[in-house]
Amino acid sequence: MSEGKKLSGAGLRGQSAGETALSTVGVSGSGLTYRGYDVKDLGENATFEEVAYLILYGELPTQAQLDAYKTKLKGLRGLPQALKEVLERIPADTHPMDVMRTGCSMLGNLEAEHNFSEQSEITDRLLAAFPSIICYWYRFSHDGVRIDTETDDDQIGAHFLHLLHGKAPSELHAKVMDVSLILYAEHEFNASTFTARVCASTLSDMHSCVTGAIGSLRGPLHGGANEAAMELIQDMKDEADARDILMGKLERKDKIMGFGHAIYRDSDPRNAIIKEWSEKLAAANGDDRLYRVSVACEALMWEQKKLFCNADFFHASAYHYMDIPTKLFTPIFVCSRVTGWAAHVMEQRSNNRIIRPSADYVGVAPRKVVPIANR
Amino acid sequence: MSEGKKLSGAGLRGQSAGETALSTVGVSGSGLTYRGYDVKDLGENATFEEVAYLILYGELPTQAQLDAYKTKLKGLRGLPQALKEVLERIPADTHPMDVMRTGCSMLGNLEAEHNFSEQSEITDRLLAAFPSIICYWYRFSHDGVRIDTETDDDQIGAHFLHLLHGKAPSELHAKVMDVSLILYAEHEFNASTFTARVCASTLSDMHSCVTGAIGSLRGPLHGGANEAAMELIQDMKDEADARDILMGKLERKDKIMGFGHAIYRDSDPRNAIIKEWSEKLAAANGDDRLYRVSVACEALMWEQKKLFCNADFFHASAYHYMDIPTKLFTPIFVCSRVTGWAAHVMEQRSNNRIIRPSADYVGVAPRKVVPIANR
Repeated sequence: MSEGKKLSGAGLRGQSAGETALSTVGVSGSGLTYRGYDVKDLGENATFEEVAYLILYGELPTQAQLDAYKTKLKGLRGLPQALKEVLERIPADTHPMDVMRTGCSMLGNLEAEHNFSEQSEITDRLLAAFPSIICYWYRFSHDGVRIDTETDDDQIGAHFLHLLHGKAPSELHAKVMDVSLILYAEHEFNASTFTARVCASTLSDMHSCVTGAIGSLRGPLHGGANEAAMELIQDMKDEADARDILMGKLERKDKIMGFGHAIYRDSDPRNAIIKEWSEKLAAANGDDRLYRVSVACEALMWEQKKLFCNADFFHASAYHYMDIPTKLFTPIFVCSRVTGWAAHVMEQRSNNRIIRPSADYVGVAPRKVVPIANR
Repeated sequence: MSEGKKLSGAGLRGQSAGETALSTVGVSGSGLTYRGYDVKDLGENATFEEVAYLILYGELPTQAQLDAYKTKLKGLRGLPQALKEVLERIPADTHPMDVMRTGCSMLGNLEAEHNFSEQSEITDRLLAAFPSIICYWYRFSHDGVRIDTETDDDQIGAHFLHLLHGKAPSELHAKVMDVSLILYAEHEFNASTFTARVCASTLSDMHSCVTGAIGSLRGPLHGGANEAAMELIQDMKDEADARDILMGKLERKDKIMGFGHAIYRDSDPRNAIIKEWSEKLAAANGDDRLYRVSVACEALMWEQKKLFCNADFFHASAYHYMDIPTKLFTPIFVCSRVTGWAAHVMEQRSNNRIIRPSADYVGVAPRKVVPIANR
């Protein structure tokens, strides 16, 4: 392969760029699996900490392993003073994904990965610290308070809601947050994960890989879809209004986020799960408008365009029912996906060759420099 | 291409992952060109600011355009107070590439790219600010001084040396630094540039793309080669000692950095250029030991392994003759390559599809979750 081979289709779509034992996406019969387990099965019969353990360590934990893992993660929620001081210097109007990117990078300055034998420790630390990072910044910049990031909450999802709202969440909210983290944990060679693997292929450190992945997830074609879905539905008054607004967008050929997928063809297996929880949240809340307009959007998009809801669409109403500010939706994605990213980094390291493709040259022909006086 | 197509060779080597008009690498007859100009021609007949302008804006500047560009860049050397305060909180023993990564990310919090019409302004700012970022941190953490990052130096290379050493450099040192920046400015789809393009393909912001690229360049298989070359040669007493040390490494099959290349087959066109300048620096210095042992290494590696010096090898002695601490070698690479990265980001944005390859699944077969009590 010394001659550059042109790949059909831009964006490497449908092209294999390596091997993975971590997940399958869109393989018929099982829409999304993590290490062989269907995500639906995991969402019903496991917790996020079990899934993180599965993704990072290869197998679901026993009760004793899970207890020890949760105790360990709880002990890693505190932030170094220097990191807090950095977060306090990030303005309130900053994109929260930029805060995550900077927080991860700064933590890498203070607690560097000196060699790859530390990769699991570094990953567990990031997994435990990300909710603290985003909530510490958010509460300081928006409410002027310096929160204590160490809570007694048993799980990461509840811990996040506790830090954000200053009080422990209801059982229902803690449960939905937990399921949501499971759904977002891993998704094969998506753009942010591929970013992490390209970085890992230079044998760079874990913080660099995850920082790079956060930067890619920030893009509106990737992680920003649940925020965009929220912007779409937030002002819809009822089902009829939802149909009117959406039909107008379709006529104007506006981009509508939260529908369809690069890999899935007929449905996103994560949608039915989060949709069911959004309905329960609506019922508990009493005001079910957001859920109803979301259902109306789903029906119309299928009827008009044969497009299905992806994982992001019903996450918008679900997160909103839990009083999560829209701009924090994508950072939650980071709090979960760090497991998948880190597992891919470890996998890349275990059988590495630097990822260095070629390009087709389409520029000007060879030419000589003209002295500046003659240009 | 709905079926995943397996690429021959790992790391996408020899596979085209897109189009570029920015450079050619290893095309016969011209080892390395930037927008059609041979890097040797540019090194002899242009300055780094002209090359940066060429890469970013498409053509070499006229004298008036160059004067305006240099004036503009000079005006962008100051750092915001909040960024300085962040840099002051990064410990002295931090990897300087982590400082660059965090500095870039933090600047993105303070001066965000709100839309792509700002991409050139953001890039010029990064180009002007990177020497200030690394030197402000270095001088504060190592010497305890808060330097003024705004100097009157006409060019970026001289500005960097001025900030680092606290005095304006000699004409020779300023010239070598300028040539060095030209040599490192752009290199097609290498791993850090590809990282930037993957990030850009999600339509993320410029700071995220460059932050991710810095993280990839940090890896020892990528940007760290000139530092590794310095570690190799620094204790070699003379030519005979150089041969002894190197033969020992070859016998032990130790990895030797600074030789060979993923794309070039016979020589790296940048080597002859920086080698010539290293020789001049050695002559000016009086102590030519490092240059002589480098020449001995070059001869032995060709004789024993038919491996040629790449751009990094004679950079080690050249930088050392300019009293640049070894750990700052790769950050200099960033100060130059940000031009190539940013130009690739702009190119990706101009004809974008999200970069999302597939993977071959090699994991366990589908399985059912066993209740935790039964594991």
